[in-house]
Amino acid sequence: MSELLFIGEFSTPYKTLQDCPKNIQADGPICTIQIFDEYKDGLYGLEVGQKIVVIYWLNDNGKIKRTVSIGSSHHASGEYGTFAKRSPARPNPLGLGVLEIVGINDTVISVKGLDCLDGTKLLDIKPAIAHEAKML
Amino acid sequence: MSELLFIGEFSTPYKTLQDCPKNIQADGPICTIQIFDEYKDGLYGLEVGQKIVVIYWLNDNGKIKRTVSIGSSHHASGEYGTFAKRSPARPNPLGLGVLEIVGINDTVISVKGLDCLDGTKLLDIKPAIAHEAKML
Repeated sequence: MSELLFIGEFSTPYKTLQDCPKNIQADGPICTIQIFDEYKDGLYGLEVGQKIVVIYWLNDNGKIKRTVSIGSSHHASGEYGTFAKRSPARPNPLGLGVLEIVGINDTVISVKGLDCLDGTKLLDIKPAIAHEAKML
Repeated sequence: MSELLFIGEFSTPYKTLQDCPKNIQADGPICTIQIFDEYKDGLYGLEVGQKIVVIYWLNDNGKIKRTVSIGSSHHASGEYGTFAKRSPARPNPLGLGVLEIVGINDTVISVKGLDCLDGTKLLDIKPAIAHEAKML
């Protein structure tokens, strides 16, 4: 059973893949994460100022190819395989970001600088390790 | 289509969940990641010394509950919801680690300090970007 469950959805300013920044920008615009009601208890204890890892599903309604390839990268010259790049075209189109929580209002979390399409589905939130280290 | 594809498998010293460290230890034992042959091209350009993010599937043959709850944490006193903890019991049992590549031999990548069961299935490898690398 490796089927994913969508636990929420992002609101971002980006309506097409061409609009999206190539990675998360720490000074990007405020975006929101709407957590679906049934998962609300999972947010208990998250705080403004805390750093979280979000994992999301980049598949753009099935339009992104789920294969590996070798090609150019936005981040360096030369050729790179899929796992040496952050491109959304990969066997599992999982997106990943480390973000600071700037607001929490019931089931809506505000963050800065997401890089993905408006309506992108959320899979998981985890507290970032650096934050855990400070709590130890 | 939110079905996951397994792209490889970990070899770790941990045969039961009780054996597993609670998170990745930078000074942990050498573990290996076997990439399945059909995904080999995706590794092109990865290098020893590079930091990568690995995403893996923690579900332990379906034994881990895929729900949210509020409970204690290994890392702090008090009660926390699922998304404020790193427990494998979560709607999508995705594990995440930032690791340094210590060796690459064809389709086998060696890393230090994985925290998951032997045989855990790999979903994705991404090059870490600077602020993620600091999570180590």
